[in-house]
Amino acid sequence: MPTYSAPVKDVTFLLNDVLEVQRHGNLPGFADATPDMIDAIVSEGARFCEEVLAPLNAVGDREGCTRHDDGSVTTPTGFRDAYATYRDNGWIALSMPEAHGGQGLPSTLNTVIQEFMTGANLAWSMYPGLSQGAAAALMEHASEAQKALYLPKLASGAWSGTMNLTEPHCGTDLGQIKTKAVPNGDGSYKISGQKIFISAGEHDLTENIVHLVLARIEGAPEGTKGISLFVVPKFLPDDNGEPGARNLVSCGSLEEKMGIHGNATCVMNYDEATGWLVGEENRGLAAMFVMMNEARLAVGVQGLGQSEVAYQNAAAYAKERLQGRSLSGAKYPDAKADPILVHPDVRRTLLSIRAFNEAARALVLWTALQSDIAHRSDDEKAAQAADDHMGLMTPVIKGVLTDVGFDNTVAAQQMLGGHGYVEEWGMSQFVRDARIAMIYEGANGIQALDLVGRKLPKNGGRAVMAFFTEVGTFLKENGENADLAPLLGPLKSGLDDLQGATMWFMNNAMKAPDNAGAGSSDYMHLFGTVALGYMWARMAKVARAKLAAGDEDTEFLETKLVLARHFMERHMPETALRRARVEAGAETMMSLAAEAF
Amino acid sequence: MPTYSAPVKDVTFLLNDVLEVQRHGNLPGFADATPDMIDAIVSEGARFCEEVLAPLNAVGDREGCTRHDDGSVTTPTGFRDAYATYRDNGWIALSMPEAHGGQGLPSTLNTVIQEFMTGANLAWSMYPGLSQGAAAALMEHASEAQKALYLPKLASGAWSGTMNLTEPHCGTDLGQIKTKAVPNGDGSYKISGQKIFISAGEHDLTENIVHLVLARIEGAPEGTKGISLFVVPKFLPDDNGEPGARNLVSCGSLEEKMGIHGNATCVMNYDEATGWLVGEENRGLAAMFVMMNEARLAVGVQGLGQSEVAYQNAAAYAKERLQGRSLSGAKYPDAKADPILVHPDVRRTLLSIRAFNEAARALVLWTALQSDIAHRSDDEKAAQAADDHMGLMTPVIKGVLTDVGFDNTVAAQQMLGGHGYVEEWGMSQFVRDARIAMIYEGANGIQALDLVGRKLPKNGGRAVMAFFTEVGTFLKENGENADLAPLLGPLKSGLDDLQGATMWFMNNAMKAPDNAGAGSSDYMHLFGTVALGYMWARMAKVARAKLAAGDEDTEFLETKLVLARHFMERHMPETALRRARVEAGAETMMSLAAEAF
Repeated sequence: MPTYSAPVKDVTFLLNDVLEVQRHGNLPGFADATPDMIDAIVSEGARFCEEVLAPLNAVGDREGCTRHDDGSVTTPTGFRDAYATYRDNGWIALSMPEAHGGQGLPSTLNTVIQEFMTGANLAWSMYPGLSQGAAAALMEHASEAQKALYLPKLASGAWSGTMNLTEPHCGTDLGQIKTKAVPNGDGSYKISGQKIFISAGEHDLTENIVHLVLARIEGAPEGTKGISLFVVPKFLPDDNGEPGARNLVSCGSLEEKMGIHGNATCVMNYDEATGWLVGEENRGLAAMFVMMNEARLAVGVQGLGQSEVAYQNAAAYAKERLQGRSLSGAKYPDAKADPILVHPDVRRTLLSIRAFNEAARALVLWTALQSDIAHRSDDEKAAQAADDHMGLMTPVIKGVLTDVGFDNTVAAQQMLGGHGYVEEWGMSQFVRDARIAMIYEGANGIQALDLVGRKLPKNGGRAVMAFFTEVGTFLKENGENADLAPLLGPLKSGLDDLQGATMWFMNNAMKAPDNAGAGSSDYMHLFGTVALGYMWARMAKVARAKLAAGDEDTEFLETKLVLARHFMERHMPETALRRARVEAGAETMMSLAAEAF
Repeated sequence: MPTYSAPVKDVTFLLNDVLEVQRHGNLPGFADATPDMIDAIVSEGARFCEEVLAPLNAVGDREGCTRHDDGSVTTPTGFRDAYATYRDNGWIALSMPEAHGGQGLPSTLNTVIQEFMTGANLAWSMYPGLSQGAAAALMEHASEAQKALYLPKLASGAWSGTMNLTEPHCGTDLGQIKTKAVPNGDGSYKISGQKIFISAGEHDLTENIVHLVLARIEGAPEGTKGISLFVVPKFLPDDNGEPGARNLVSCGSLEEKMGIHGNATCVMNYDEATGWLVGEENRGLAAMFVMMNEARLAVGVQGLGQSEVAYQNAAAYAKERLQGRSLSGAKYPDAKADPILVHPDVRRTLLSIRAFNEAARALVLWTALQSDIAHRSDDEKAAQAADDHMGLMTPVIKGVLTDVGFDNTVAAQQMLGGHGYVEEWGMSQFVRDARIAMIYEGANGIQALDLVGRKLPKNGGRAVMAFFTEVGTFLKENGENADLAPLLGPLKSGLDDLQGATMWFMNNAMKAPDNAGAGSSDYMHLFGTVALGYMWARMAKVARAKLAAGDEDTEFLETKLVLARHFMERHMPETALRRARVEAGAETMMSLAAEAF
C-alpha cells in the first residue's frame, strides 16, 4: 500500500529561507506567522494528511461514491470521519478573514496544506477545496446579507460549496449556457436546467451544500454577456440561517470516471430551484472567474501533490526491489541482487521528477505569497505588481504543473514495472487521479491561450516584462558568483529563448492570431521551464549561502545543489525545442481542410 | 461509443508504393502476395476488426474476466464468438509455414492485421498474439515430435499459447527464477512454482492452453545459466494428440489492472505439473528470447494501434463539438459555435499524433519486411543485413512506439475535455490499455539498455553503421531534389545528433557504463525520432513522385506532404535536446547516496 510523507522540511526551507516570509510581517495575518507558528501549523497539517487522509486514498478509489434512489450520495468509508476531524480543527478557514469566521493567516500557509492534502488524497481534498473557492467568490461579489448568511457556515465547514458551470453541450464556451433563471418577484429566482461534471455536487459530509450556479435570466442578452451567478443552497436557510426546506436541486446521477472515484462527480438537475443573484445581473462570468482563478492555482497544486506522492512511492520501491546488477559491477555482492536504484536510468527518472517537484513547490509558494501581497498589502504599487505576477503565473502553474505532474506519475508508475500496472500497489491510482487536473478548471489548452492571448498583452505586457526584469536582474546580480555559474548559463539561455518566443509572437501573431494559437502550448511550457529554472537558481543560491555559513544540514542542502544542476542540464535545454516549435508557426496546422483530419 | 476504422489505404500505400513488396516476389510466400491479394486480405482483416472486435472493446473493459471457484476463467461477452470467427477464418496462421498448418504468407501481412486488431481491441488481440509468440518459440527450438504435436493445434487456433516468465520476486532479472523442474525419468518433468502476470493464462476461448514456462532443473547452475524452457499444456495430450487428463497447473487469481480488463492476467500455480523440456537444458533464456523478440515488435505495434484509434476518435469529436469561435473570426457564423477543429492548438495535437502514427506504421512495416527477408531470403548477405536491422529496430519500435503511443492517447483524450475523463466516451480506456505496452515484454528502460548496451556494439556496430549509411545515402541521393529540401535539412540535423550521441557513448561510456545507462532512454528516443523522420522523407518522396506523375488521389498525397513537414518542423528538433541530455552524462544521477532519494 502506498504511503505519503508531507514534505515539511522542504516547505519550511522555502518559506523561511528562500521566500523569507518573515520579511512580510507588516501584512495582516503575517505577524502571527512566526517560524514557530509556521512550524506548528505545517507539522500539524502534515500529520493529519499522513495519518488520516492518506490511508483513505485507496479506499476512496476502490469504493467510490454511491448514489441512492432518493438522490442522496454516500462517500467512501472513512471520508465523513476525516471531514469531521478536519472541520473541527478549523483547517478550512485557515486563511479566511477573521470577520467571516476565519483565522486570517496567510493564504500561503493554506496553499502548503493544500499540497499536502492533494498529495495524500486528491479525491477527498476536493470537497473542502470547492468550499474555499465558493467562499472566495462570495467574499468578492455577494451582498453583505449573503456574506453574513453563507460565509460563516462555509468557514466553519458546516456547509460546503460547489461550482456549477458546465452543461452537456458547453464547457469552455459558457456563452452557450441554457440553464435559466426566472424572477420570483421577491428577489429570488427559479433556476431550471442541467449541469454536468459537478464535483462534490451531492455528498454526506456536510449538513448543507451551497451551489454557485451560472444561469441566464429570462430575456438576458445572448452569449457570455447574459450570464448571471446565483447561490442555490441544497436546503433553504430558515430564519435562523439553519438548513430548512429542501430545495428543488438534486443529483441525477454520478459520472463513472477514470479516477478521483472518491469524489462525487454529479449530474445536477435544477427544477425550479430557488436561488439568489450574486453580484450584478449578467455579470456572472466575471464573478465566477474569481472562483476559477483560485481554483486554477489549487489545481496546479494538485499536479504537484500527485507528482510528489508518486515520487515517494517509486523511490521507496527502487530502494527495496532487488533485481539485476549495477552496470559497473555488483554494488551489494552479498545480496541476491542490487536494488534497482543502482541503475542510472532509474535515478534519472526519479531525479527528474524530484527536480520538477521541488521547483514547482517553490513556484507555487512564491505565487501564493504574491497572492497574499496582492490582497493584503496597502502599498498599492507592491499590490499591483503582485497581482500582475499572480495573473501571469496562474495559467503557467495550472497548465505546466498538471501536465508535467501527470507525466511524472506515469514515470513513477513505470519504476514498478508490472506492479505499477496492477491496482494493488496504488501507482495506477496516482496516474488516474492526476489525469483530471489537466482537464478541469479550464483544459490546459485553454490555460495556454489565456497566457498567450490575455496575460501577455495585458497592460502593454507589464506583467511579463516585470518577470523578464526579475530574472534578468538575478542573472546580472549573481554573474560574479562562480559557484552559481553552471546554473546561470542555462538559465540565461532559457530566458533568451523565452524572450525570443515572446518577441516572435509580437511580430507574427498580432495580425495572424493562429500563430499564437499554434504556439501557445509550447510557449506555456517554455515559460514554465524558465520559471522553474529561476526557482532552482534562487534555491541553489540560498543552499550555497547556508553551506558557506556552516549550516550542518549538509545532505539536504547538497542534494538541492545536485537537483539544481540536474534540472539545468536535462530540463532547461527544452527551451530551445519549445522556441523552435513556436517559431514554426501555424502553417502546417491550418493548411488542411477539415475533411483531411 | 468510440469507433475504429482500419487504415487500409495507408497500409496499401506503404506496402505497394513505399516498400514495394512486389520487388520481393522471389521470397517464399511473396509471389502469392500480389497487390490484389494484399488488398483482399487487408480489407477482409479490416472488416473483421471494425465490425467484430471494435464493438467488443468497451464490453471487455467493463466486464473484465471472471475467475470461478474451480479456477476456470470466463472472458467477456462476445469474446468467444469473435475468437471462433477469427479461428475459423484462419487468421492466426496467416504467415506460419505451410508445413505446420499455416498459409505461409509474408509476416509483413500478419503485422498489418496485428495493428488493426490492437487498434480495435487490444485486450482481445493478446489471446491470439500470445499463441503466435508461443508457436514462434516452438518452431525455433522444439523437437520434431513437439512441433508435430503442438504447432498444428496452435496454427489452427484450437489451442492457444502463453509465456510464463515472471515470478513475484523477479521480472527483468530472470536469473532469480525459483520455479523448479524435477525429472520424472521418462523425459518429462514435474514443474512446481508460481508465475505472475501471465496474460491469457486461463480462459474459455480454446480447448487447450500451451504454457511455455521457464524453470530451473534440480541441481542446475545458479542464475540465468540454469534456466530451462518447458512446454506445459493445460490438458495433457492423449495418444491422438487431443486434450486428455487435466494437468496440475491452475489459475490462482486474476490481477486487478489499470486496463486491458478483457485479457485474463493470471497468477499461475504449478503444483508438480507435467512438462517437457524445449530445446537444451539450461538454455531456456535463449529459447524464450525468440518469443520475446517477436513479442516486442508486436507490443510496439500495440502502441501504434492505440494511438491510431485514439486519434480517430479525437478527430471525430473535434469536427463535431461546437464550442467557441476561431481566433481569426467565426468560421461557421450560422452555427451557434465553430467546431473545435478550427483551433490551431487542437489541430497541432491531432497532427502531431498523426504525423507519428503514419511514420510509425511505415517503420513497423519496413521492419516486418526485414523480418521476412531475414527468415526467408537465401541471399545470405541480404538476410544478415535484414536481421541486423531487425535486432537494432526491435527495442526502438518497442520503446518509442509504446512511449509515444501512450502519450498520444493522453493527448487525444485531452481533446474531449471532461468527456475524455468519463468512461462513457471510451478515451479513458485507450489510455489505460495503452499504458501496459510500455511495461510488458521488457519495460522501456530495458529496451533502451538493450539498444545501447547490446545492439549498438554488436558485431562492431555493424547494424547501426548500416542504418547511418542508409539514411546518409538517401540524403546524398536526394540532395538535389528541391522539393524535398525542407525535409532533408532537418533530417540531416537529426542524423548528425544521432551520430554525435553515438560517438559520445563510444568515447565516454566504454569505461564508465553509467554514462550509457544515464543516456539510454534519451538515446532510444533520439534514434526513434530519426528513424521516423527517415520514414517521412521516404514517404514524401513517393508522394511527390506520384503527384508529379499525375496521380489523382491528391488529397491523400498532399496530406502526406503536410504531415512530413509538420514532423520535421515540430518533432525533429527534439534530437538536439536528446543529444544534450545524453552528453550531460551520469554525474548528477550517480552523485547522491541511496538515502538521499
